[in-house]
Amino acid sequence: MAKEQKKMVDDITSMDEDFAKWYTDICKKAELVEYTSVKGCMVIRPYGYAIWENIQNILDKMFKDTEHENVCMPMFIPESLLQKEKDHVEGFAPECAWVTVGGSEQLEERLCVRPTSETLFCEHFKNVVHSYRDLPKLYNQWVSVVRWEKTTRPFLRSREFLWQEGHTLHATAEEAIEETEKMLNVYTEFCQKYLAIPVVQGMKTESDKFAGAERTYCIEALMHDGKALQAGTSHYFGDGFAKAFEIQYSDKENKLVYPHQTSWGMTTRLIGAIIMTHGDNNGLVLPPAVAPIQVIVVPVAQHKEGVLEKADEICSRLKKICRAKMDASNNTPGWKFAEYEMKGVPIRLEIGPKDIENNQCVIVTRHNREKTFVSLDELETVIPQKLEEVRNGIYNAALENRERRTYVCTALDEITKALEENGDGFIKAMWCGDEACEDKVKEITGVGSRCIPLEQEQLADTCVCCGKPAKHMLYWGKAY
Amino acid sequence: MAKEQKKMVDDITSMDEDFAKWYTDICKKAELVEYTSVKGCMVIRPYGYAIWENIQNILDKMFKDTEHENVCMPMFIPESLLQKEKDHVEGFAPECAWVTVGGSEQLEERLCVRPTSETLFCEHFKNVVHSYRDLPKLYNQWVSVVRWEKTTRPFLRSREFLWQEGHTLHATAEEAIEETEKMLNVYTEFCQKYLAIPVVQGMKTESDKFAGAERTYCIEALMHDGKALQAGTSHYFGDGFAKAFEIQYSDKENKLVYPHQTSWGMTTRLIGAIIMTHGDNNGLVLPPAVAPIQVIVVPVAQHKEGVLEKADEICSRLKKICRAKMDASNNTPGWKFAEYEMKGVPIRLEIGPKDIENNQCVIVTRHNREKTFVSLDELETVIPQKLEEVRNGIYNAALENRERRTYVCTALDEITKALEENGDGFIKAMWCGDEACEDKVKEITGVGSRCIPLEQEQLADTCVCCGKPAKHMLYWGKAY
Repeated sequence: MAKEQKKMVDDITSMDEDFAKWYTDICKKAELVEYTSVKGCMVIRPYGYAIWENIQNILDKMFKDTEHENVCMPMFIPESLLQKEKDHVEGFAPECAWVTVGGSEQLEERLCVRPTSETLFCEHFKNVVHSYRDLPKLYNQWVSVVRWEKTTRPFLRSREFLWQEGHTLHATAEEAIEETEKMLNVYTEFCQKYLAIPVVQGMKTESDKFAGAERTYCIEALMHDGKALQAGTSHYFGDGFAKAFEIQYSDKENKLVYPHQTSWGMTTRLIGAIIMTHGDNNGLVLPPAVAPIQVIVVPVAQHKEGVLEKADEICSRLKKICRAKMDASNNTPGWKFAEYEMKGVPIRLEIGPKDIENNQCVIVTRHNREKTFVSLDELETVIPQKLEEVRNGIYNAALENRERRTYVCTALDEITKALEENGDGFIKAMWCGDEACEDKVKEITGVGSRCIPLEQEQLADTCVCCGKPAKHMLYWGKAY
Repeated sequence: MAKEQKKMVDDITSMDEDFAKWYTDICKKAELVEYTSVKGCMVIRPYGYAIWENIQNILDKMFKDTEHENVCMPMFIPESLLQKEKDHVEGFAPECAWVTVGGSEQLEERLCVRPTSETLFCEHFKNVVHSYRDLPKLYNQWVSVVRWEKTTRPFLRSREFLWQEGHTLHATAEEAIEETEKMLNVYTEFCQKYLAIPVVQGMKTESDKFAGAERTYCIEALMHDGKALQAGTSHYFGDGFAKAFEIQYSDKENKLVYPHQTSWGMTTRLIGAIIMTHGDNNGLVLPPAVAPIQVIVVPVAQHKEGVLEKADEICSRLKKICRAKMDASNNTPGWKFAEYEMKGVPIRLEIGPKDIENNQCVIVTRHNREKTFVSLDELETVIPQKLEEVRNGIYNAALENRERRTYVCTALDEITKALEENGDGFIKAMWCGDEACEDKVKEITGVGSRCIPLEQEQLADTCVCCGKPAKHMLYWGKAY
């Protein structure tokens, strides 16, 4: 290992020593975020924001391909509007930021900075939906929201975060449920195909549902340290909000009826999921689909005649097929290797005088540090293959980690034992459906219910906690 | 005119009768915005937001082509941070919205919802800029900001609006000034080429500068009614903010020096500018570059065999070269004509049984309602030409309107007379540089100074107001 390489790596805490510190080290050293004097809020720096832009571009296309339209609602919600749906306000009011002064005047009614926008969409739907011909409404918006969290961590939990929130209105319950499930599938495909993060599709238990929802679907991922992370949620509201906001439409028989509603969201926390799923002790490992730089071209012995020119020529060729960049700075190659490993660039391409003589270059894939000599004539074929290889390699490693850390348990003491012996992970266990058992499992073993997976297995006939007949198999875990 | 067409047009106030009402009618009827219970804030509906997305895409590419990177700062600014630069806080504090409560607790320090983000960028620059090697920093962000306006109008003046704000930091004053001017040119090209809005480039007078700026450059456009609209601004800050925030870097001689700064912004008010520059009594007229639908395909006698199939085939062909849509709904062709005229779609393509027989279609350009018969074999050539024709047609009409409404005046009573005789417009007149004269001109004639144009003319030797020697030619006007 080159000296410079060693130095930079020394700066990151080892993930095996202190996973939390390793995480924040990467956030800072890879220049994803910077702290600010605004408590609990962060600056998303160019490299971090470029990842988010790639996430946005892919998701936005998936939304548009499924007929959704983007809109933009105000960032403020008058207190009286937030209060219209009882469960909703109970869930969100405790974590709202309130604007009480505008200009130099005390406001007559305080405004909360949106923690989520169901109430605003409902008010709008009431204005624009009158007939069955106006349905469905398939809306989305890309905005930031605010939730007054006590303890915060970059990307994972911050007082302000960026997200998309889809809000749709349908003529029937069936259509709305179909939409809720369709968007869960969009999220699943996005995570697995583009972020290379395997997820479990499921439904939240009663106690864990979104405030005001009839059903909350979710996808759950397992991080490298065995903790679970909710990567996206999709809610079915029934006609609860429609009734609270008096949204009605006249159906084909000219009868006034209530429409059915959904909402679904994904956030910048996905960047946290990427870090904790794929990262290693050398830094970030980025899935090619969202990596700001997919191939970094590093000239070796760049002072020698023809090296920079050749590297530049290769980079120009690569720019036609991927996001490529050349680093011709005066830093040593070793420094550059460490720098772009830290930043998780999927492929490094090295080219020096010897390589040029042999009409070849060296390609190193970030996740496994595998070196390959590649003919310069074959770059256009090999690079896309390698990018696909990286995606598959990190997906399989994440899947393997999850499988290794998923424990089937049929009794409470098995849960405790599994966690003690193997470390944190997913627990698969049966459940009677009673909230008291959910609470008790958490109290005794420390793991909470993550979801009722859509793919059920009959692991046993009785609840892991009380021994009464089991209703569902549940995934349990400690969560971010 | 078909009956349905007449009906929809009747719903818009004539622009000659009441321009302000015509404007809000279009905002509503073209489904760009909807009001909300959040005073002074609006919902940007799908059609309005799609225009903004097109604006964003073009501008964002222009920013990236000039080496700028996107970031995201918090939406809150602690009061003490806002106060660091004296002029800046004086300018913005009176129109801030203040968060005073977070969750259930009174905050120790109130936070303003960003009206602009110079202070946050400065804090960040201080953290990440240490050496000349860290410069320049060329940043931009796409966010919304809040200014507590008393009277509001959709797009033109609202309490929350969407914008981009560029913030850059440079080693020298020269570089920073160069950047300020470069971005003014980017804005100018964007307005003229893509929005088809001619603009005057200039500099604000002392009294009209951005709070904290040394120089404020701007582009000014003239609306259909003769009122001026500021379409974009670009500010040079010198090292004032750097000093207030103690941002220093070590230069090549290892001396600590202050860097120089710029910021520049464009907002959703551009949509207001589009409406008021190009719109007419039939509704919106959209510049092709930002029109969500560039060609609307309307089948005529669509119940007849083969019509819908042919229209669909044409639409699929068009989708490869532009944003095309077919309307196969059960509304009459006349209704559809009026609908898409209202929405400002640049080109309507009509196709009926007779046309199919003759292997042709009818093309109608929105801005001049010109009809052309076009062979179906030539669509791929003709449509791009027609779109370019529309852009040029509406640009020239806007330019002609501005020229017709620009009055050269050398005395105060000439200004009054010009406005009385010809209606509102730009006044070109000389100025001594004294703020008292600026105020007096406004008081007596009603027009304020818009900018000191970069292209100066020597219209006279003396100030239009006081008769003392003139320093600059100014553009004056009533402004949105």
